[in-house]
Amino acid sequence: MDGKIDPWGNELVSDYEKLFTEFGMKYIDDSLLERIKSKNRLLRRGIIFAHRDFDKFLAAIEKKEPVAAMSGIKPSSDFHLGSKLTAEELIFLQQEFGAKVFYAVANLEAYADNGLSLEESRKNAVVNVADLLALGLDPKNAYIYEQSEQKDVMNLAYLFARRTTMATLQALYGDRGIGLYFATLTQSGDILLPQLKEFGGPKQVIVPVGIDQDPHIRLCRDLAAKFQAEYKFRLPGAIYHKFMRSLDGESKMSKRDPMCMLSLGDDPELAYKKCMAAFTGGRATVEQQRKLGGEIEKCVIFELYTYHFEEDDRKLKERRAACTGGKLLCGECKGELACRARDYLKQHQAKRKKLLPKAEAILEKGEK
Amino acid sequence: MDGKIDPWGNELVSDYEKLFTEFGMKYIDDSLLERIKSKNRLLRRGIIFAHRDFDKFLAAIEKKEPVAAMSGIKPSSDFHLGSKLTAEELIFLQQEFGAKVFYAVANLEAYADNGLSLEESRKNAVVNVADLLALGLDPKNAYIYEQSEQKDVMNLAYLFARRTTMATLQALYGDRGIGLYFATLTQSGDILLPQLKEFGGPKQVIVPVGIDQDPHIRLCRDLAAKFQAEYKFRLPGAIYHKFMRSLDGESKMSKRDPMCMLSLGDDPELAYKKCMAAFTGGRATVEQQRKLGGEIEKCVIFELYTYHFEEDDRKLKERRAACTGGKLLCGECKGELACRARDYLKQHQAKRKKLLPKAEAILEKGEK
Repeated sequence: MDGKIDPWGNELVSDYEKLFTEFGMKYIDDSLLERIKSKNRLLRRGIIFAHRDFDKFLAAIEKKEPVAAMSGIKPSSDFHLGSKLTAEELIFLQQEFGAKVFYAVANLEAYADNGLSLEESRKNAVVNVADLLALGLDPKNAYIYEQSEQKDVMNLAYLFARRTTMATLQALYGDRGIGLYFATLTQSGDILLPQLKEFGGPKQVIVPVGIDQDPHIRLCRDLAAKFQAEYKFRLPGAIYHKFMRSLDGESKMSKRDPMCMLSLGDDPELAYKKCMAAFTGGRATVEQQRKLGGEIEKCVIFELYTYHFEEDDRKLKERRAACTGGKLLCGECKGELACRARDYLKQHQAKRKKLLPKAEAILEKGEK
Repeated sequence: MDGKIDPWGNELVSDYEKLFTEFGMKYIDDSLLERIKSKNRLLRRGIIFAHRDFDKFLAAIEKKEPVAAMSGIKPSSDFHLGSKLTAEELIFLQQEFGAKVFYAVANLEAYADNGLSLEESRKNAVVNVADLLALGLDPKNAYIYEQSEQKDVMNLAYLFARRTTMATLQALYGDRGIGLYFATLTQSGDILLPQLKEFGGPKQVIVPVGIDQDPHIRLCRDLAAKFQAEYKFRLPGAIYHKFMRSLDGESKMSKRDPMCMLSLGDDPELAYKKCMAAFTGGRATVEQQRKLGGEIEKCVIFELYTYHFEEDDRKLKERRAACTGGKLLCGECKGELACRARDYLKQHQAKRKKLLPKAEAILEKGEK
C-alpha cells in the first residue's frame, strides 16, 4: 500500500500497517477500552480496532463537554451491512456518550460519483434515514440533512478549495474529475460542520468509518489545521472498523456488486439464498472437515455472525470451537445464519416501513 | 491571441478578431440596431459592439416572451467605471425591454480569487448594490443575491463539475487552483439560474460583459447545451463592450491598480487629480499640437468623455473636431473632464449614501 487507498473502490486493503507507522493512526488498546463503560459488540470484538483522537473525545466526555458524532451516506441505494455498522456506531456514540449525531446525506457526492440526480437521491435517502431510525437513532439529538440543502457545508467546500492544491488531491485520490475532488472537500465541510458557531462552536467530533475511508479523514484534519485561525477547529477524530468482506470473500462488501452483499432492503428470501451461496471455510470433504475442522478465518459466514448476527459472546465462542473442532459442518451453520438474516430483515423492514413518513418529514424540513 | 483570454488579468486584448472568426461572436450590425427603439449611449457609440444571440433576445421581446438580463460583481471593492458600464447596460435592458435583472454578488469567487472573507465581501456588496440602485436599477424587477446564500447556484456548480473535464478548464483558463475552477462553474450557475423552474423556466437571457469575460460565456453556453435534456436551457446570450483602458493607457482599467482607475467610491478631489494625471493624445509641444491636432485615438480623456461623461453626441463630435483640429489643448479638455468626474462622484455618492440601508436590506433578505 502506497498510502493511496481508494475510498470509492472495493478492493480489500490487506495491509493496514503503514496507516499506523506512517499516517498516525492508533490501535484501540485496553487502557482506552477501560474508559468506556458499556462496550458494544463491535468494540468488544475488535471490529472497531483503530482510532484517531478517540482519547481526546473520551477526555471531553469526562470533562462533560458537548461532543458530536458525525457520519453520512451516499444515497445511491439501500444500506448494506457496512452502512449498518456505521449507523450502529453512531447510535452507540449517541446512547453511550450523549453525542449529538450529525448525519449527511451526500447527494452531491452521489451525483459526482454516480450521476444520481438530486430527486433520485432523495428517494433513496428517505429509506436510508428510515433505516437509521429503525436501528435506534434518536432524531431529537441529531441533525440530518442533505448536502445540497446545507449552505454552510457548501460554503466550507469553497473555502477549503482555496487552500487545497491539485497536487494534494492527486496524491490522496489519484487522478479524478473536478466533481469528485470537490465532493471530497464537501465531505470535509460535512465533518467540520458540527464545529461552526451555528452548531455550538468547536468541539470534539468522532467520525465512525471503515478503514478505507481514512484518506477523507486525513484531508479533513489537514484542512481543520489550516483553518484553525479562523474557526478554532479541533481536529476531528475517528474510529475505524474493519470492513465486511463481500459474500464471495473476494473483495470489500460494496453496493457495486449487489449479489455479493446483503442490503437492508433485500427481499428476505433473496437474502436467505445469498447467504446459502456465501463463501465458507469448509474443507473439500465432510471427512476432512470432521478431522481438521473448518478454516474459520476464511469464512464469510462466521464473519457475519461476528459482525451482525450473534450478540452473545459465549455462543459465538462455542460456535468457533464447534467449527474448528470439526463438530459443526458448514451446511448447518450456514442454514442457521441464513434464517437469522432472513428473520432480521423481515423485522427490520417492518419497523422501517412505519418510519418512512417520519424520515420524509426530517428531510423535507431541510436546513436547520 | 490563442483563444486563452485571462478574465482575471488586466492585459489589453488588442486583437479581438479570432473571437469572431473562430469562436462564434458576432458584431452588432445596423439591422440589429434598427430593432431597438431607444439606443443608449453605449450602443450609439459602438462601445457595445458585439454579441451572441442578441437577435434571439430581441425576437423573444417581439414575441412578448419574458426575458432576463444577468450580471454580477466580485465584491472585492467599489464599482469602478468598468462595473458602471455593466450596470448601465443591465439598467438599459431592464428599462427598455422589461427584462428581469438577476445580479450575483460573487462572494465565493472573491474568496477563491482574492481570499476575501464572506464578511468582508458583504460590506463591499452593500455599497455595490447601493451603487446599482443609485444608477437606476429598479429592485422590484430584480433578484439580487450572494452566491454563498444561493443553494441553487451552488448545486448547479456541482452538477456542472461532473461534465466538465480538467482539460476543458485548463484550455479555457490555463493552470489554476481548484477553487478558481469551481468559481467559474459557479458563475455558470449564476448565468443559468434565471432559467430554473423556480424562476419561471427556460427563457432568453442576456449577459452584458466586457469582451475579456468571453471565456466564461463560452463555458456556460457549452454547459447549457450539455444539460439541455434535463433543464431545457436556452443558450445564454451576451452583449460585449470594449473595456475601458486604465488612466495611464497601459492596460485594462482594473481594481488591481487603484491609481489608474476611477472608482465610484473615490474621494472626488482624488478623482480630479487622477484625471489630471491621465494619459492623453497630446503632442510634445503646444506648437505641434496646434499644427497637427491631438492624437485622439490614444487619448484616455476622450475615452472617458465617450464612455461616461458626455451624453450629447453633437458635443462629443465638436470636441473631437476641436482636438484633432488643434483648437482644443489637453490642459483645458482634461480640466473640464476632471471637473465633470468630480461633480459626478459628489452627486452619485450622495445618492448612494441614502440607498445604503435599502441595499443592506436587500442582501439581508438573502435567498428568494
